[in-house]
Amino acid sequence: MEKETCIKIEEAAKAWTAEAAEMLQKSFEDTLTITYKSHIADLVTNMDKNIEKFFIEKIQKVFPDHKVLGEEGYGDEIQDTSGIIWIIDPIDGTTNFIHQQSNFAISIGIYEDGKGIMGLIYDVGNQNLYFAKDGKGAFLNDYKLPKLDKTTLSEAVIGVNATWVGPNKRINHENVQEIVRKSRGTRSYGSAAIELAYVASGKLDAYMTMRLSPWDFAAGLILLNEVGGIATNTDGKPIQLLKQNSILAARPGLHEEILNVLVR
Amino acid sequence: MEKETCIKIEEAAKAWTAEAAEMLQKSFEDTLTITYKSHIADLVTNMDKNIEKFFIEKIQKVFPDHKVLGEEGYGDEIQDTSGIIWIIDPIDGTTNFIHQQSNFAISIGIYEDGKGIMGLIYDVGNQNLYFAKDGKGAFLNDYKLPKLDKTTLSEAVIGVNATWVGPNKRINHENVQEIVRKSRGTRSYGSAAIELAYVASGKLDAYMTMRLSPWDFAAGLILLNEVGGIATNTDGKPIQLLKQNSILAARPGLHEEILNVLVR
Repeated sequence: MEKETCIKIEEAAKAWTAEAAEMLQKSFEDTLTITYKSHIADLVTNMDKNIEKFFIEKIQKVFPDHKVLGEEGYGDEIQDTSGIIWIIDPIDGTTNFIHQQSNFAISIGIYEDGKGIMGLIYDVGNQNLYFAKDGKGAFLNDYKLPKLDKTTLSEAVIGVNATWVGPNKRINHENVQEIVRKSRGTRSYGSAAIELAYVASGKLDAYMTMRLSPWDFAAGLILLNEVGGIATNTDGKPIQLLKQNSILAARPGLHEEILNVLVR
Repeated sequence: MEKETCIKIEEAAKAWTAEAAEMLQKSFEDTLTITYKSHIADLVTNMDKNIEKFFIEKIQKVFPDHKVLGEEGYGDEIQDTSGIIWIIDPIDGTTNFIHQQSNFAISIGIYEDGKGIMGLIYDVGNQNLYFAKDGKGAFLNDYKLPKLDKTTLSEAVIGVNATWVGPNKRINHENVQEIVRKSRGTRSYGSAAIELAYVASGKLDAYMTMRLSPWDFAAGLILLNEVGGIATNTDGKPIQLLKQNSILAARPGLHEEILNVLVR
């Protein structure tokens, strides 16, 4: 990609994300007068759709040859990874959006021929922008995130939801219990995008989950790559960009240690 | 308690909390140049102790007849609940303080003859002060928190750590797994004070954990009481203020529904 194009994409993505975040924050003012849960749920569905449509309209106008893959399905029919694809989750962490009005994010991963070019995860409630550009590093607002040091499970704080610690169809829960037991502690925030951004910024040492869609992880993978984080499926295989995947993202060293428990 | 005394305590507690929060935030500037984990751990130990001593000195000077119960043990030997007792956790969520530099809190519960008078939980990273005064309601910064509506488990987001979802010595984990399965979702933040404040402010519908000390829950109970939240041990018995307790805190309705699973 030419440098000029890349700068143009960065400026546009950041400006549109800021605008979308404002729309989301503004929607809370409306909910303050709404007391019935069903109404809030309706509002959320609308906001998810509206924000996705907002991005698609902007992208189609400014970058007519780019494609869009979005959670709400208003984007393009994507068959392969050729060309430039914006992979967008307008609200990652919708339950948090409803229940907490915080801990949700706008997630945008931009790929060219399957290679991550740029990732943005905007934690709207805390006004924290996690941003990464291929080969240029990752940033939390103005702060350049350092490369991730190695760590061990006994010193690690792991992002894992309680769902995977009890019996479930997707993973041997006894292996997950062992990871929980051997770690320093676990956390769960209910937004995959934020949890991947936390691994990239060192707030979590690892994050694992059993089923994510492309819009949940597309931006996070680019962030992780820039700081030396490792991300694979929970069986150690490479993540497939356009499919549902299990994800194990972690600092170096720790990724291998967790994987050894999960795959034995 | 006389109204004047109460106002004096409120002003002092808020001012000292703000001052302590500034000390904690400032400590991060020092850590930016510290790269070895052991050094950060030392710093944390110091900050825990320093903040507790800071409060004790202030309290002894301004309210010489009040007693202090603190996590670090610099306070008084408390035998019973008579008189006015400040129950203080200088840093609730120490692991988060080290790993995240956010999601930790200063927690202060003030009791008179065993009755909750005032509670403060200051989420330092997000600059959110949760404050409650007996009979006067609970507040998140300037916003008066509404009374908690009833809810059901299937619509509820529950705060519960993965530790209790696997086999453990303190609770039948299969009952906890059932609660996880039947809920809308679970979260875990690693700070009991913040998690109790989240229940009081509706960000979580319930929170359960198996072992908390007085300084972990003293402030949270006062907040919950002001918004109609229910808090007991996980076997339904009353919480004992000066001992370690299991805690189940929840919206009305939901508390009973969860308890029915835990005690059967």
